[in-house]
Amino acid sequence: MQRYKLIVEFDGAPFVGWQRQENGPSVQAAIEVAALAFCGAETTAHAAGRTDAGVHALGMPVHIDLPKEFPDDTVRDALNHHLQPQPIAVLKADAVSSEFHARFSAKARHYLYRIANRRAPLTLDRGKVWRVAGALDADAMHEAAQHLVGRHDFSTFRAAQCQAASPEKTLTSISAMRHGEEIAVRASAPSFLHHQVRSMVGTLVQVGLGRWPSAKVRAALEARDRSACGPVAPADGLYFVKADYDPL
Amino acid sequence: MQRYKLIVEFDGAPFVGWQRQENGPSVQAAIEVAALAFCGAETTAHAAGRTDAGVHALGMPVHIDLPKEFPDDTVRDALNHHLQPQPIAVLKADAVSSEFHARFSAKARHYLYRIANRRAPLTLDRGKVWRVAGALDADAMHEAAQHLVGRHDFSTFRAAQCQAASPEKTLTSISAMRHGEEIAVRASAPSFLHHQVRSMVGTLVQVGLGRWPSAKVRAALEARDRSACGPVAPADGLYFVKADYDPL
Repeated sequence: MQRYKLIVEFDGAPFVGWQRQENGPSVQAAIEVAALAFCGAETTAHAAGRTDAGVHALGMPVHIDLPKEFPDDTVRDALNHHLQPQPIAVLKADAVSSEFHARFSAKARHYLYRIANRRAPLTLDRGKVWRVAGALDADAMHEAAQHLVGRHDFSTFRAAQCQAASPEKTLTSISAMRHGEEIAVRASAPSFLHHQVRSMVGTLVQVGLGRWPSAKVRAALEARDRSACGPVAPADGLYFVKADYDPL
Repeated sequence: MQRYKLIVEFDGAPFVGWQRQENGPSVQAAIEVAALAFCGAETTAHAAGRTDAGVHALGMPVHIDLPKEFPDDTVRDALNHHLQPQPIAVLKADAVSSEFHARFSAKARHYLYRIANRRAPLTLDRGKVWRVAGALDADAMHEAAQHLVGRHDFSTFRAAQCQAASPEKTLTSISAMRHGEEIAVRASAPSFLHHQVRSMVGTLVQVGLGRWPSAKVRAALEARDRSACGPVAPADGLYFVKADYDPL
C-alpha cells in the first residue's frame, strides 16, 4: 500500500460539498471513484478541509491509499483522466509516508473570499464571487477584521450544525484588500469552525456598507451568540486556497 | 431620439458571437431585445468589435438609439434587468451625441488572450482560458511577437472569411507575460483582421513550445500566406478588453 498526497483544484458549483452524501455528487466520492477506476481498489479520500456545497478549492490537500506504488505523475494523470469531465483536477501527486494525514497533519489552513463590488450583474465570474451592489469601504472592513485576530470563542461565527468539540479557535490573520472592483478577504488559522469564514465575511460586509461601526464586530465576537452575527456570505465567493504541513 | 454608449461585459460561451445570426443566440440580438422590452422601440446595437462565437468581452463599447432620453443609470439598470439571466451585463451607460459610433469612432482596440500553461485539466477557468500542457517560454513568445509590431500585410494571420477591404493593418503593440501558470498576451491596434489575434497567439505558442524559432514568425508574416500561420488558438481564451475614442 502506498499513500499519496494530492493537491486538488475544483469548482464547487455542481457538488454537495467535499463530503460524500446521499443527496448528490461530492468531490470526495468523485476522487474515490477515479482511484477505483485507475487501480481497481477502494480507497477513502481524506481532505484538509470539508468544504460546503458551492465552495471552491484552488489547492485542497487530499490523501488516498493505493494498493501499490506508481510514479507520481502517473497517479496525477490517471486520476485526472478518470475525473473528466467533472470540474475537479489533481494539480500534483506525491508519494508520502503513511504517517501523513491530509486533515490531522495540517498545521494551518488558508481561505480566500472574493467579493465583486459592482452594481451590474455578474457574467464571466458568475458563481465564482459574491456580488455586493452597495459601495464597500475595504479599509474599514480590514480594520474591523483585526478585532477577530487571536484566540477567541467564535460561537457568534459558527454554524448551528458545526461539529467541532470547542468553539475556541485561533485566527492567525485576516485581511481585506481592494483590487479594482474586487475585494479579497484572506483568512488563515490552524483550523476553522463550520461557516466561520462566511460568517466573518458577511459581518465585515455590514461594516463595509457603513451599517455597522467597527466596534460592533468586537461586540458581536464577545456576545458568543450566533444571533449577533451578520448575514452569512454565500458559498460562491469562498475558496480553500491551501494548507500547510511540516516538511514531508 | 437619444444615443447611448454602453460598456458591455459578456461571457461568450453560449453565443454564436456578437453579430445577429440565424443559427443561435447573439449578444447583439440580446441587447436589442432588452432595449425593446425596456422602451418599446426597435434599435440596432453597434459594437466596437464583432467578436466570434465563444469570445468574451470585459468592456465592449456598444451604441444604441432610444426613442427618448432617460437617466444614464436607468438605462444601465433597465437593460441589465431585461438581459438577465443571460451572461451579459451593461457596466456603464452614457448619453452621447449622435455623431458617436461605437465601431467607426473607435481609435484603438485592445485584446487580451489568456493561456493556462499546465498539465492538469481546467476546472474553475474552464471555457475562460486556453490550456496548453507543454512548457511555454513566455519570454521567447514576447520576443518573437515584436516581429509583428508595425504596419504590415497580415494575410498570414487572417481568416479565409475575413471581410476587411485590405490585409494591411498596424499592430501598435503586443506583449506576452507570465504570472504563475498563466500567460497573458495583450495586443493593441486601431483595428484587427478576422481571427488575427487568435492566429498570432497560436503562432506564438509554437515559439513558446520551442517548435518554431523566433525568426520563423517574421518569415510567416513575410509569406503573406494563410498556410504559413501556426494553428489558430481557440476562442475560449480571447477577451475584447476595451476600445479608445476621442473625448466625448
